[in-house]
Amino acid sequence: MSNKIYFTPGPSQLFYTFEEHLKKALFNDIPSISHRSAVFIKILEETTGALKELLALPDGYNIYFLNSANEAWDRIILNLVEKSSHHFVNGAFSKKFYDFALAYNKSSSITQVNDGASFDNWDIPGEAELIGLTKNETSVGHSFLEEEIQHLRGKYPSKLIALDIVSAAPSLPINFEHIDSAYFSVQKAFGMPSGLGIWIVNEKCHEIALNRSKTTSLGSYRTLPNLKKFGDKHQTPETPNMLFIYILGKIAQDILQMGVKRMRNDTTYKAAILNQAIEDHPLLSHFVESIKHRSKTTIVAKTERASEILEFLNKKGLVIGTGYGAHKENHIRFANFPTHSKESVEMLCDLLEKIE
Amino acid sequence: MSNKIYFTPGPSQLFYTFEEHLKKALFNDIPSISHRSAVFIKILEETTGALKELLALPDGYNIYFLNSANEAWDRIILNLVEKSSHHFVNGAFSKKFYDFALAYNKSSSITQVNDGASFDNWDIPGEAELIGLTKNETSVGHSFLEEEIQHLRGKYPSKLIALDIVSAAPSLPINFEHIDSAYFSVQKAFGMPSGLGIWIVNEKCHEIALNRSKTTSLGSYRTLPNLKKFGDKHQTPETPNMLFIYILGKIAQDILQMGVKRMRNDTTYKAAILNQAIEDHPLLSHFVESIKHRSKTTIVAKTERASEILEFLNKKGLVIGTGYGAHKENHIRFANFPTHSKESVEMLCDLLEKIE
Repeated sequence: MSNKIYFTPGPSQLFYTFEEHLKKALFNDIPSISHRSAVFIKILEETTGALKELLALPDGYNIYFLNSANEAWDRIILNLVEKSSHHFVNGAFSKKFYDFALAYNKSSSITQVNDGASFDNWDIPGEAELIGLTKNETSVGHSFLEEEIQHLRGKYPSKLIALDIVSAAPSLPINFEHIDSAYFSVQKAFGMPSGLGIWIVNEKCHEIALNRSKTTSLGSYRTLPNLKKFGDKHQTPETPNMLFIYILGKIAQDILQMGVKRMRNDTTYKAAILNQAIEDHPLLSHFVESIKHRSKTTIVAKTERASEILEFLNKKGLVIGTGYGAHKENHIRFANFPTHSKESVEMLCDLLEKIE
Repeated sequence: MSNKIYFTPGPSQLFYTFEEHLKKALFNDIPSISHRSAVFIKILEETTGALKELLALPDGYNIYFLNSANEAWDRIILNLVEKSSHHFVNGAFSKKFYDFALAYNKSSSITQVNDGASFDNWDIPGEAELIGLTKNETSVGHSFLEEEIQHLRGKYPSKLIALDIVSAAPSLPINFEHIDSAYFSVQKAFGMPSGLGIWIVNEKCHEIALNRSKTTSLGSYRTLPNLKKFGDKHQTPETPNMLFIYILGKIAQDILQMGVKRMRNDTTYKAAILNQAIEDHPLLSHFVESIKHRSKTTIVAKTERASEILEFLNKKGLVIGTGYGAHKENHIRFANFPTHSKESVEMLCDLLEKIE
């Protein structure tokens, strides 16, 4: 790795043990062994086990390996939505999930507010089978509250809830009892290269998919019934990204070893000093107005001098994120992931202070 | 890497420059940069360019990045087949493509012969829109001849031909003028870890997909029109496996540098000595009877003492492949990929001779 530190919201800085695990994987020929071998079956079991423990998944929740969060949107619509889903949209990624539903000709519906705004209307059309929520809207730094998810769960107990936990897991605690499915990609808070997505589903999802599969095609190799058939044996339908599955398990074990509570306390501390740095700064202000909805892992500031700030920090070796999409020119984004040390975030805050 | 040499037909031995490119990628922060950055756009352009040159793709053939050959089967059926495809099946992988078509409720048809046997009936139902062929049936070591593909092309000029070039590309020359689409995964002859698939399509495929997209859903992020929309800008719809795309391009450049002709001559030489070793061996005989249909890159021998031979070679540090599926106990498979040096194959032949 170079001497730069990437505070970009993903792809981001690699986890600090990434290279060590990579070397060990190569030494042990992980990329050359068979994906049907006992060695790889054990690796898949270990990675799944470490993720289940790290995310505190309740019994009955299964983990499957995809290649991106985009693919998770695709699989969720194909497997779990017959006619309609409903999407709470306040940024580019929550919107994209809705667009995927439309691409499959679903008559899906949307509750849309301004980017980064919070929701106050929780009504959903009766026909919606699944509710799409975004724990952490990476494009603008808005975070869904646990009590909002819980409220929807109580109000619509028969609808499925699919929660986007990209750039949220494992930094933010999530109560999986309130949701049926969740998904993330590994190039955010897990500090890995892109190319692997994780899809979590509960028994209810499996039942719905199995029932639908009797009359409808849910796809080919990565239908839920097929993922379960192989997953129950700690295998995958196809030859997966074995190297990344191995390393993801090792990173999950490292975070468990470090202590989940400590990692989350650090996340809170780093978010607090970054938030303070934004508040104190004459050129910056928070984009998300509601304090309690501000993401701890993707902190977004408005500024009229975005490119100048990016360049200043870049010269000091710190790479921060531009705004996303329409906000490219007047937002800056800071990732706050487990690999970002307290010292590096303190340095970032100190440098921000120097920009006048 | 350990001291072992993997002659398994994939995942297989890593390409001998793999680690060097990996180190450089990490030093240059390839896993941390944005997939929308100018740097990555250039990488994608370079990888695409190197592959086009290496495979001698004619103008009008585009390259897209998927995650496996399984995904290519899936995307081909979704994008290019309205009602029916036809599949020439003589092994597990050609069969699987047919199964994918059935999973999507297509009324597809099949010409099936015994595993490893050649075809003599080239008739295809009129309703088939696409013909699925397998250049190299990795499960049993049968290779389709260029003149057979050409014969089908001449006989059915209006049907699409999709050619599976898994474990064939880049070792075996392929005349892309005779086919409309091809696909492979990188963990075979390109000597990379699994997790990346390459899909090649021509203009005719794009036209068909675009037309079909007006009335039917072809999927979401990886429909052909969407892949083309992003691909034309040297981008991908989603955050792809950037690290592997970078390394694949470098390996393609290395093979170009070494000389495609030399690599293919070496492939022929190594196949010849391996074939001779099988013929001379009292415990081994060729599984594919037709000499001209024997694969040069996946050489399959019948034997009643498979596990014993595997174990003997394994103790010497050479890992060879078991038989596939039903042939697990009485086949052995040898990969002959660009990363396998002539010396290593000579050593393999010498060791085989010692088994009595």
